[in-house]
Amino acid sequence: MKVKLASNYGFCFGVKRAIKIAEEYKNSSTMGPLIHNQDEINRLQNDFNVGLYKDLKEVKDDDTVIIRTHGIPKNDLKNLKAQNAKVINATCPFVTTPQQIVKKMSKEEYSILIFGDSDHPEVKGVQSYGEDQEDVHIVLEPSDLEKVNFKYNKIATVAQTTKKKEKYLEIVNTLILKNKEVRVFNTICDATFENQDAARELSNEVDVMVVIGGKNSSNTKQLHSICKENCQDSYLIENEKEIDKEWFKNKTLCGITAGASTPDWIIQQVVNTIEACH
Amino acid sequence: MKVKLASNYGFCFGVKRAIKIAEEYKNSSTMGPLIHNQDEINRLQNDFNVGLYKDLKEVKDDDTVIIRTHGIPKNDLKNLKAQNAKVINATCPFVTTPQQIVKKMSKEEYSILIFGDSDHPEVKGVQSYGEDQEDVHIVLEPSDLEKVNFKYNKIATVAQTTKKKEKYLEIVNTLILKNKEVRVFNTICDATFENQDAARELSNEVDVMVVIGGKNSSNTKQLHSICKENCQDSYLIENEKEIDKEWFKNKTLCGITAGASTPDWIIQQVVNTIEACH
Repeated sequence: MKVKLASNYGFCFGVKRAIKIAEEYKNSSTMGPLIHNQDEINRLQNDFNVGLYKDLKEVKDDDTVIIRTHGIPKNDLKNLKAQNAKVINATCPFVTTPQQIVKKMSKEEYSILIFGDSDHPEVKGVQSYGEDQEDVHIVLEPSDLEKVNFKYNKIATVAQTTKKKEKYLEIVNTLILKNKEVRVFNTICDATFENQDAARELSNEVDVMVVIGGKNSSNTKQLHSICKENCQDSYLIENEKEIDKEWFKNKTLCGITAGASTPDWIIQQVVNTIEACH
Repeated sequence: MKVKLASNYGFCFGVKRAIKIAEEYKNSSTMGPLIHNQDEINRLQNDFNVGLYKDLKEVKDDDTVIIRTHGIPKNDLKNLKAQNAKVINATCPFVTTPQQIVKKMSKEEYSILIFGDSDHPEVKGVQSYGEDQEDVHIVLEPSDLEKVNFKYNKIATVAQTTKKKEKYLEIVNTLILKNKEVRVFNTICDATFENQDAARELSNEVDVMVVIGGKNSSNTKQLHSICKENCQDSYLIENEKEIDKEWFKNKTLCGITAGASTPDWIIQQVVNTIEACH
């Protein structure tokens, strides 16, 4: 079977970078799971002896700790460093940016607004960089702004990297109408949307489509749903074992895409298996 | 006839202030007409000997020159001052703000975007405060941005005080999607829209409506059209001489509003005349 990969799929820049760092620092441990893919975590454990802390308290002196792409709160980082742990910072550069913006803007006496999910580790990290924690506000919807009391009428705003731009603009527009100055930092990362755009394009070209990723991963499910819009015969699988040869009967071209937590070696196994189908 | 004035009508804060300044400085002259109302300009001339320059070249040493609400370009102001003219600055404070923002932001190496009409004196004045004139851009529509080449990917933006917020947001949204940082200064003045909102409200309450203002004034015509939506018997007049007693037959309440260039004494004459109608 002939296959064609989407022009963008799988890991984003930040995750690729973090995995490369983990491979370089054998015998280290990551603070929380590096990605939402157990197969990849097992591979790093087996091939590079990369372990996993579930809590900061598990870190011992002289350990090598890898900070994952989401980043961690400022004080946690400070405590780790104070503990004489060797800290390897794999925080995605696209996440470091909003952290530093929040730090700088709150020093310059701007009220801070973060568009994101207050429970998300990335947002918790970014939030921690505000000088005045009471003037760092987190919203998910424009209507959430009604409950927000800013200290200043100068607002600086950043967004969680994986959020949708359209919603960010709605929030920003509400801010602009009510404040003298709004300093908008567009910190949204295109990676997720690039995978989606590429899936949309490819699913229009092919007569069967395979989406690889976790069945509980919201970003993989979204890719699957985009593909089904254009190509009825779209299948969601976690690995090559789930492939059914029957899918490719009387088909000419199979499109392939993968969720943001799907490692390349799993994608490659799927490609090889489909190519071997007749 | 019973009359009711709109909750907002006529001159805005800046124009009221400029006229007060002109009355204080007898024997001065204004740089360009102070407002778009010939009756008011005649009154200032007759009662306070306030003259009018059509061009900077007409200014002689030791003249007292009043800068009107729109402001003037930075270099014109500099030249006036160099000439030993006594400069009385009646530039509206809401116009001074964007001038100073453009000055500060272009010094801090932001590219400047002005939402406004490039031919408007206010916009020409604001524009002139940019350090690098080639990196001060003026647009009226989001699509105009396609032709704009910014020097930096940090943009600071201001709006002409009389423009519509909705359009400003459209322009700002386009900027946010394409630039790392957009510093949005909401310099739009509510005065025009407050008159419109008040006219909308009042025209719903009354059975006849009189709008006072220049028949060529776009802002007066807009008030008239808003009133007609709610109250069929809405009349546009320039002064009390145009009032027709027939309008008030079998009516109970006459609403009154006035365009942004209509002086209070003309409004008062209209009110008196209508109140005297039976």
